[in-house]
Amino acid sequence: MIPDRLVAGYKSFLGDRFSRERQRYEVLAESGQNPEILIIGCCDSRVSPEVIFDAGPGEIFVVRNVANIVPPYETNGQFHGTSAALEFAVEALKVRHIVVMGHASCGGIRSFAQKSAPLSSGDFIGKWMSIIAPAADTLDDPGDNPSDNYMMRLNLAAIEQSLANLMTFGSVRRRVSAGELQLHGAYFGVATGLLLVRDPETGRFAPLAEDVGTPPSLLRCD
Amino acid sequence: MIPDRLVAGYKSFLGDRFSRERQRYEVLAESGQNPEILIIGCCDSRVSPEVIFDAGPGEIFVVRNVANIVPPYETNGQFHGTSAALEFAVEALKVRHIVVMGHASCGGIRSFAQKSAPLSSGDFIGKWMSIIAPAADTLDDPGDNPSDNYMMRLNLAAIEQSLANLMTFGSVRRRVSAGELQLHGAYFGVATGLLLVRDPETGRFAPLAEDVGTPPSLLRCD
Amino acid sequence: MIPDRLVAGYKSFLGDRFSRERQRYEVLAESGQNPEILIIGCCDSRVSPEVIFDAGPGEIFVVRNVANIVPPYETNGQFHGTSAALEFAVEALKVRHIVVMGHASCGGIRSFAQKSAPLSSGDFIGKWMSIIAPAADTLDDPGDNPSDNYMMRLNLAAIEQSLANLMTFGSVRRRVSAGELQLHGAYFGVATGLLLVRDPETGRFAPLAEDVGTPPSLLRCD
Amino acid sequence: MIPDRLVAGYKSFLGDRFSRERQRYEVLAESGQNPEILIIGCCDSRVSPEVIFDAGPGEIFVVRNVANIVPPYETNGQFHGTSAALEFAVEALKVRHIVVMGHASCGGIRSFAQKSAPLSSGDFIGKWMSIIAPAADTLDDPGDNPSDNYMMRLNLAAIEQSLANLMTFGSVRRRVSAGELQLHGAYFGVATGLLLVRDPETGRFAPLAEDVGTPPSLLRCD
Repeated sequence: MIPDRLVAGYKSFLGDRFSRERQRYEVLAESGQNPEILIIGCCDSRVSPEVIFDAGPGEIFVVRNVANIVPPYETNGQFHGTSAALEFAVEALKVRHIVVMGHASCGGIRSFAQKSAPLSSGDFIGKWMSIIAPAADTLDDPGDNPSDNYMMRLNLAAIEQSLANLMTFGSVRRRVSAGELQLHGAYFGVATGLLLVRDPETGRFAPLAEDVGTPPSLLRCD
Repeated sequence: MIPDRLVAGYKSFLGDRFSRERQRYEVLAESGQNPEILIIGCCDSRVSPEVIFDAGPGEIFVVRNVANIVPPYETNGQFHGTSAALEFAVEALKVRHIVVMGHASCGGIRSFAQKSAPLSSGDFIGKWMSIIAPAADTLDDPGDNPSDNYMMRLNLAAIEQSLANLMTFGSVRRRVSAGELQLHGAYFGVATGLLLVRDPETGRFAPLAEDVGTPPSLLRCD
Repeated sequence: MIPDRLVAGYKSFLGDRFSRERQRYEVLAESGQNPEILIIGCCDSRVSPEVIFDAGPGEIFVVRNVANIVPPYETNGQFHGTSAALEFAVEALKVRHIVVMGHASCGGIRSFAQKSAPLSSGDFIGKWMSIIAPAADTLDDPGDNPSDNYMMRLNLAAIEQSLANLMTFGSVRRRVSAGELQLHGAYFGVATGLLLVRDPETGRFAPLAEDVGTPPSLLRCD
Repeated sequence: MIPDRLVAGYKSFLGDRFSRERQRYEVLAESGQNPEILIIGCCDSRVSPEVIFDAGPGEIFVVRNVANIVPPYETNGQFHGTSAALEFAVEALKVRHIVVMGHASCGGIRSFAQKSAPLSSGDFIGKWMSIIAPAADTLDDPGDNPSDNYMMRLNLAAIEQSLANLMTFGSVRRRVSAGELQLHGAYFGVATGLLLVRDPETGRFAPLAEDVGTPPSLLRCD
């Protein structure tokens, strides 16, 4: 049977949050969803977009794959889950913001940086993570034992890669040109709670800290 | 800049939930994640797994794609995001439960049932949703104007398809045989909050309602 | 035997241009090439980059393929001629400018716009031109009989696509960020000789006409 | 902005060559191109086919890739730029001659002969140059430090390979059999200006020297 933890969690949701927001759920079921934001996040159990942005039902359309990657537009191959979600969000829902959100201690990024052995004969992780190879090309070679600092920089470079890949989709490019869509990068520090946000002018990531009065101790990004 | 809604939501998270759970985040950053549950859910903005199961950081590894689909194991083609996440969850994290969770009013399911026109020349949604074609083959032809009831049945059939596709992965099959991994199906009614759970014996979906004292009015699954 | 036209042309080259520039050829053979510019142009017989820019030996590294296309960075598949040339130009030659140059009456663009039947069972042109499908997505549907104006707009949109695809290469992105590399778009009007150049700020193409005192009659871009 | 060198070169073209040949450009724009010759040349900045053969607009359809390579006919994989150009030239333009033209000091050939390290993680050059591996198999192993002479012989062998690969395209084979298409090999000595041309009977390359009265000193092919 479904694990007890989920049964208990669902009871809690039903008695608490669903009770309070029930009308909202009913309206959303009636009218359909109409989110303005697409977040492409990681599957990691510590980085739920709805939690980190305290979002309610209907607010964020969420793709979660390993290491929050957007592949480039390509039509060979058959099944492109992330491209499908992107197409749906942009063309059908007409979202106005796309946020690619990475996070510290990402297992996918580490696997790539450490050139980990395949996990199965399919080597799905190896193939999937190869999408960020050109991001690694923008950094110096880390040698055999990549540091945490290198992995953070690789993570930010991979977000840049995904933002560049987003622009290979004609629908994205058209809406960005028309001012109807903005692309953003963000990076969540699990230990510190600190969120780095990409400056669209300079491409640099800086903490959203001042804005939120984060105490100095949070400024370390693990 | 990053939308105000996200800035405000992040502030709220930082001041409230992160403050309360800070130690847990720090421990999780130190020790790494160790979730026991993988949920494969839909990108839809109304069905966050962490919300529906009131889950905290570290509890659920989450894949979200359009219509919560697991493709079959296949190695031709290059990038398989969902298979990569599955491989990581099963082989690296050794999760003990996989839940495929559908929901009412799923845009991907509707797009397939209504044979919608491609959203772009890439037709990513069309190709992606074609994975559930064999699920549709298990149902009668709905004609040109599929009913809501048909779409719910198609959704449940698609969950069956994904559960069968999961079993095409050797690592999944091996762990299921060894009793180390259980596969589950679930379906969330957005309007009612009702959760249907699949009975692994009979394959039928039934409300978790009695368990949670859901009032009769919730028994309608929209 | 090699066609007479080439024999005669080569004699002419040897007696005229090679005689005059012989020292330059000798120096270039000794020192190796060191061009600062990569032009990605079309195979079309009317649009030689060396002719249009009156370039001498050693000045321009030239890729010519059908419709002057840059594919996105991708590593599946085996042989990527254009990506190979790009890698060589950027990483080995360290060019400082990349110009994607389209032209009027491009057969590849027309073939795509008119959804022409495959030329052979391999359908190499069809597959190759499919790279610009997302560019077509940025324009309105031209219907069954696309106008010349539509084909020009598709051509400019395809140049945008190639510029976006260039940015999916890590080496390109890194050098652009560092100010070591600039990307340009251009479009040559065969009948008029007019060259449109892309404004990097606005993304709009405008004639280089004022700069060169082009008479008004040249302002029509066929 | 577009580099000054190109602006100046374009002005020169417009004032000189375009002025003189304007009618030809207009006619070509009106009637479309109708070249009889396809040249497959190298991207190298020192070997423009239009310069070496003193060709005017409309005379030569030109593919330029690294090391003037024709891949064999193959349909798996998606984007084949050179095969697409070949298909277009043979099937749509019905060219009567195809010239594969190599040149001295080719960086692609050298990279292959010296087993150079990948230039980026994509290793596009390495993959692309692997097409000539069977050509290298026709020569003795050059050891770790291949001589210039070896590299010239490898270059000629690679041209043979490309001519053989051309014959793997059914459309080429058919037209060659019907006497409608001829295949040629050529090799340009950058330092000397000397052009070696392949004898279709013997397969040997010999200078076009007598024909053009090249002085003996040019007979060295660097």
